[in-house]
Amino acid sequence: MTLPSHIVEMLARIRRRFQNAPLQERLLPSDAEFTTLRPVRNASTASVAKYWQRLRATASQEDQDALADPITMADPGQFSANIENFIGTVKLPVGIIGPLRINGLNAHGDFHVPMATTEAALVASYARGAYAATKSGGISTALLYEGVIRTPAFVFDGLLDAGLFVEWVVREIDALKAAAEATTRFGNLVSVEPMIDNNVVFLVCRYTTGDAAGQNMVTIATNALCEDIAARCPIAMNAWYIEGNFSGDKKASFLGLVTGRGRKVSASVTLSADVVEKTLGTSVKAMLDYGQVANLGSHLSGQLGAQAHFANGLAAFYIATGQDAACVAESAMGITRMEARGDDLFCSVTMPNILVGSVGGGTSLPSQAAGLNVLGLKGAGNGAALAEVAAATCLCGEISIVAAIAAGHFTRAHENLARKR
Amino acid sequence: MTLPSHIVEMLARIRRRFQNAPLQERLLPSDAEFTTLRPVRNASTASVAKYWQRLRATASQEDQDALADPITMADPGQFSANIENFIGTVKLPVGIIGPLRINGLNAHGDFHVPMATTEAALVASYARGAYAATKSGGISTALLYEGVIRTPAFVFDGLLDAGLFVEWVVREIDALKAAAEATTRFGNLVSVEPMIDNNVVFLVCRYTTGDAAGQNMVTIATNALCEDIAARCPIAMNAWYIEGNFSGDKKASFLGLVTGRGRKVSASVTLSADVVEKTLGTSVKAMLDYGQVANLGSHLSGQLGAQAHFANGLAAFYIATGQDAACVAESAMGITRMEARGDDLFCSVTMPNILVGSVGGGTSLPSQAAGLNVLGLKGAGNGAALAEVAAATCLCGEISIVAAIAAGHFTRAHENLARKR
Amino acid sequence: MTLPSHIVEMLARIRRRFQNAPLQERLLPSDAEFTTLRPVRNASTASVAKYWQRLRATASQEDQDALADPITMADPGQFSANIENFIGTVKLPVGIIGPLRINGLNAHGDFHVPMATTEAALVASYARGAYAATKSGGISTALLYEGVIRTPAFVFDGLLDAGLFVEWVVREIDALKAAAEATTRFGNLVSVEPMIDNNVVFLVCRYTTGDAAGQNMVTIATNALCEDIAARCPIAMNAWYIEGNFSGDKKASFLGLVTGRGRKVSASVTLSADVVEKTLGTSVKAMLDYGQVANLGSHLSGQLGAQAHFANGLAAFYIATGQDAACVAESAMGITRMEARGDDLFCSVTMPNILVGSVGGGTSLPSQAAGLNVLGLKGAGNGAALAEVAAATCLCGEISIVAAIAAGHFTRAHENLARKR
Amino acid sequence: MTLPSHIVEMLARIRRRFQNAPLQERLLPSDAEFTTLRPVRNASTASVAKYWQRLRATASQEDQDALADPITMADPGQFSANIENFIGTVKLPVGIIGPLRINGLNAHGDFHVPMATTEAALVASYARGAYAATKSGGISTALLYEGVIRTPAFVFDGLLDAGLFVEWVVREIDALKAAAEATTRFGNLVSVEPMIDNNVVFLVCRYTTGDAAGQNMVTIATNALCEDIAARCPIAMNAWYIEGNFSGDKKASFLGLVTGRGRKVSASVTLSADVVEKTLGTSVKAMLDYGQVANLGSHLSGQLGAQAHFANGLAAFYIATGQDAACVAESAMGITRMEARGDDLFCSVTMPNILVGSVGGGTSLPSQAAGLNVLGLKGAGNGAALAEVAAATCLCGEISIVAAIAAGHFTRAHENLARKR
Repeated sequence: MTLPSHIVEMLARIRRRFQNAPLQERLLPSDAEFTTLRPVRNASTASVAKYWQRLRATASQEDQDALADPITMADPGQFSANIENFIGTVKLPVGIIGPLRINGLNAHGDFHVPMATTEAALVASYARGAYAATKSGGISTALLYEGVIRTPAFVFDGLLDAGLFVEWVVREIDALKAAAEATTRFGNLVSVEPMIDNNVVFLVCRYTTGDAAGQNMVTIATNALCEDIAARCPIAMNAWYIEGNFSGDKKASFLGLVTGRGRKVSASVTLSADVVEKTLGTSVKAMLDYGQVANLGSHLSGQLGAQAHFANGLAAFYIATGQDAACVAESAMGITRMEARGDDLFCSVTMPNILVGSVGGGTSLPSQAAGLNVLGLKGAGNGAALAEVAAATCLCGEISIVAAIAAGHFTRAHENLARKR
Repeated sequence: MTLPSHIVEMLARIRRRFQNAPLQERLLPSDAEFTTLRPVRNASTASVAKYWQRLRATASQEDQDALADPITMADPGQFSANIENFIGTVKLPVGIIGPLRINGLNAHGDFHVPMATTEAALVASYARGAYAATKSGGISTALLYEGVIRTPAFVFDGLLDAGLFVEWVVREIDALKAAAEATTRFGNLVSVEPMIDNNVVFLVCRYTTGDAAGQNMVTIATNALCEDIAARCPIAMNAWYIEGNFSGDKKASFLGLVTGRGRKVSASVTLSADVVEKTLGTSVKAMLDYGQVANLGSHLSGQLGAQAHFANGLAAFYIATGQDAACVAESAMGITRMEARGDDLFCSVTMPNILVGSVGGGTSLPSQAAGLNVLGLKGAGNGAALAEVAAATCLCGEISIVAAIAAGHFTRAHENLARKR
Repeated sequence: MTLPSHIVEMLARIRRRFQNAPLQERLLPSDAEFTTLRPVRNASTASVAKYWQRLRATASQEDQDALADPITMADPGQFSANIENFIGTVKLPVGIIGPLRINGLNAHGDFHVPMATTEAALVASYARGAYAATKSGGISTALLYEGVIRTPAFVFDGLLDAGLFVEWVVREIDALKAAAEATTRFGNLVSVEPMIDNNVVFLVCRYTTGDAAGQNMVTIATNALCEDIAARCPIAMNAWYIEGNFSGDKKASFLGLVTGRGRKVSASVTLSADVVEKTLGTSVKAMLDYGQVANLGSHLSGQLGAQAHFANGLAAFYIATGQDAACVAESAMGITRMEARGDDLFCSVTMPNILVGSVGGGTSLPSQAAGLNVLGLKGAGNGAALAEVAAATCLCGEISIVAAIAAGHFTRAHENLARKR
Repeated sequence: MTLPSHIVEMLARIRRRFQNAPLQERLLPSDAEFTTLRPVRNASTASVAKYWQRLRATASQEDQDALADPITMADPGQFSANIENFIGTVKLPVGIIGPLRINGLNAHGDFHVPMATTEAALVASYARGAYAATKSGGISTALLYEGVIRTPAFVFDGLLDAGLFVEWVVREIDALKAAAEATTRFGNLVSVEPMIDNNVVFLVCRYTTGDAAGQNMVTIATNALCEDIAARCPIAMNAWYIEGNFSGDKKASFLGLVTGRGRKVSASVTLSADVVEKTLGTSVKAMLDYGQVANLGSHLSGQLGAQAHFANGLAAFYIATGQDAACVAESAMGITRMEARGDDLFCSVTMPNILVGSVGGGTSLPSQAAGLNVLGLKGAGNGAALAEVAAATCLCGEISIVAAIAAGHFTRAHENLARKR
């Protein structure tokens, strides 16, 4: 059989769904009438009620009550800087791990880390890793680099103009920096690197963003830089775009892995053989043996870096602390290492793209602010510490899952916590 | 200057933080005493209160009230199948877009899509895309493939034993399939493919998972398969692991891009020139011109596929409907295409790794269930339709962002919605 | 300084080149007259002489003699099936390593491997690896998979037609296979897998190709398959292309790493501690320590798999044995592993994309045929063995370079062999 | 059938090979006696004869004559700086294309480009592209960047020492640069960038290398830099390695794609509609339509950049001009673009990693020197021009293959030239 059987089966499954309805009709455009939602930027009790009226065809009063509950509706306007077309709030359960001892350049002390998830066993697993790490003296962390990027693109007639443009940018760099930085109190344009592909030039604009994650800040600053270029540059330009889809914003990319985006943090701990055995229920050798296989798997499947499940820790941490959950796509890459140190086990994560802020974004919403307060890291001065806590938390998760898989406990944990309750 | 200036500056920034404290001490392990949390799997009013007592050092009563609000605390036990060490709920604002007309194999009709985010302008942008798509007759969608994978690894003394093992698996495949499927009512093992690296064999086990996202289902089924192998296989095995870090679970990988993981959906719409001009405020040509540059950017920065911001749509959709937000890391890749069709604009997304379920995971929590009800897609029979809605939603976001960048509106939208309120 | 200094310096270098000539003029199209070469497919003494007359502006009689030497010119026609516009031959020096003991599924015995290169130290380094491997009992090898792919693409109006097309292919697969295989005695179409991106369908056609590398064979067979589709398929098709730039032909791709292309071979040897010390001048521990760093480097720089310098061994082997040197681009990826086995060192390479043939291509040219005869692997029946020798040779190179870098000898070897003579 | 049929078939094929011989024995180490080659660095008539005596088991006198022909044997010592264990030369046929008009920053004029290959149709195809480009006024080229890298790695006890090390390097950078540059007349260390992964620091050392490809030059310079560090740096170091497998030397990597390695060149030409029709036998629209599909294929298969077959042009050019053919592995990546310009077709390639030299390596061997003389680019002052010719040649190949596939001629060309003679 030349066609793989699972593909044949899949096609048959798809066909079976349509035995009663002509496939052709289902996929065609339809010109039935519709009334679109009137967009609402500043939510009110009335606007929410009106939306729910629209949704009655599928959603019940009970559904409305679950999202537009009385506490949420006590002040719907509080969400207006974070969302449009507001209909209520979704509630994600938050668990904590800790104390997680962090010996860091920026984060220093014993932390309780809030994690928001609906995946059973996740918090328990990270808590186990935190316990092992803390018993071993805590996790050392250092912010190694910062630099949120925005990469506008400029299109010219040809290579010659592109080259002249780059020369002009070099000459004008100080004025351009000033234009960009005039839009922001906290943003600092630290480098501009041209990337030329014939008649197209990308400018990789790299910023530090104070305590904010800074995605909007760098957009606005770069826009000012571009407008200054557009106003003053004598080389004829066919078009410019605020983002040439080069920066890796909201997506995994090798650029991000290689040069970093957001904050780059390294975190490590050496677990004693005793802790590995008593707390994690396995042995250093078993973890190292599995580490070799896991590394092989990462190469053979074409991952960006090598790690087990940064995304679990990051998503839970980002949501609980008011960060942008979509940034998990770009943050969840990097390197986890486990190596023998005598009889003990050195474990580290290095994460080049952590996007967190202690101010801005969702950080001032009440429950998210509470999440930051649980950490003691709300408000100005805490951006770098937050990034270190994020990395340390991910390291806990790596330790725990590697131990679980090495010991053969992984499935059991998921069975017990997700199913048997 | 041989060292790039931004690196020198970054190092100086780091050093400045520590002028008053000896760096050496901060990063060293500490043996200060600590008391760990007692893990709690079944949350109760008492357990939550006890935790907050622990958190008083950093968090106030107000913080506690924000997370452990009266509605949440009316029944803390309802979250016990989804989290451990529960301390309350974080509330994410939900907005809706729609009606979004979907002409799909599985999803068919006019949908209102709930999106949970704290990023201003996101819902408004997707709503604009939905309006343009619906005015153009709606988005055609088709589920093209399903197959959640788990990839256990088996380690042997050498290549010879690895080869004999694969032969044994071939002979025993029916029994192994039976062992796997005995653990699940809905999971179906559709293929097993060996991947050999000398003495290590990965078995790529691919399942359909009914209406569930299915990550636990495939873990448990594969564990049974592995235990059957371990019990009966005559070839001496040094170790086996339930996951060889090959499946791409919770991370972007080229394996996922090439062979798919989860549900693969394609969604498309042809926007009339008129809609592009009146609704999106730009022109087909401008969008195509930008598309060329954006495609170039995706190549030069080493992305997996080419797209603008799937992660925004996916994260907001996953959170609002009880999916696993960590899966954004693996789902947010694929292909966005925009091409001329006469005077009009063909737009499509093909997403190989959508992980959604209409049952299981967080889907039965009250506010998440309400999110699914808003769509009319809660419960059995709706998994495939959910995946199609996810892809259609992402297509709305791609249309809107490309139009905004092409027209030069992108920054203004973010300034207005995020800052000026 | 916001612009990195090396970029500024680079721009200045470029500008300096043009202080005397106006840059603008140099890059502009020119309409000066020219006379193109008359293409020659069957070389003769006269055609070669005529070409050299054309080249006299830059090349001397001595140059002509170096390429069009008497031996070459004794029968210029012998190259006519391999080149057009023939002007002579370039001579690459060939060195040998060996005996290299290979204990393989297909290659079995003590081989002398010819390697063509102009890079000093390369042959010496591979010879050292071969000696260490042979002293340790030889290299075990196994061909694990074969399957050269060609991936035609078919374009339709929309997703619906694409789906109907795939269904039609499924129904007609036996006839299509027959059409493809009718063009070849040795090619066997082993699988066809559709890859759908909305209205575009790629068919991944995978062949075994007997003892040939098979790139032309699969092109011709797939062309017949496509023409059969074009003649008989009732679904309206906008276009089809023999290759959708998907197969990874002549380029590194993750598709090739994940699913293999060409022949996949694994090769391994366990070096005794004694051999590592006496032959390689280092220790097992030193090699393992370096292996950890080298693995990290491969991840952080975004390589496809992890290896040191497969390309050196492959290019030298391909050229010396009449293979296609351009295929080095796709073949030079895979995995090198080094692991402790007690006190000894397990070393393996797994290479998913070796493209070699013992017939066809350049294998019957006199000096290339001699290269194959040195191996004893010329002609029918030896394709699989050749692939195993290629992998074993690469393993020798990996062993030697890792030992050299671990021991700190790497630079010295290059200094001595390349410079000091 | 759960196991894909082609895998089952492949396993059966492998098993069939061994029905008569016990598989177990074939793969086991063997302790049979062997005599290794005595390594020879300075070839002589005697040394070559002695080797051939060893090879008599498999190779005939005719084989010896084919490699160790009288012309080669007239002066075997001429190859001693390029190879060890010399047994003769392999002869690759060389064809020429041209005149290829290049309007470049460094290369300027009408060139005849020598290409060495055994793949039929390759030279004819590139010649066709060259003709189309020259008829359109020639190819504009610019060297955009240079920077061969070497990336030594340094291992410390922990993150703290790694940080202190980087600080020390920053302070000592001028002395380190001096140490590196003391080893070379032509090499210039233009930047050093640290890349930290916890306790491991890679230093990305980027050099310009004059007219040489420079791989040995940067190794020797970096070794001096490392030894200066090792001698003077006060931070305790566990190990250092001349190359951390990070530089992308001899392998495709995203680092190379993103930051460049070797010489980065962009080359472009706008083909008139008339030339596309009359010379290439297709239409601008057909080429653009195929370009969309080819771009999609490059994304879906996980290539590094997007191009058709750079490797063919590069391998043929590298071999004919004495470059290192193994570097094809790293050079064969980048971007090919084709876009409408009114009725005409803009075509460009941007190649970030061309590794060529007009001096050093194999460039002074007689037939390779002749290849450079055909171009008029032998010796000092021509390195940058060579890189531009390489890129322009690749652009010819891209134009020709895209036209051939778009027009449906691709297979026919291969059938005619490879088979029918």
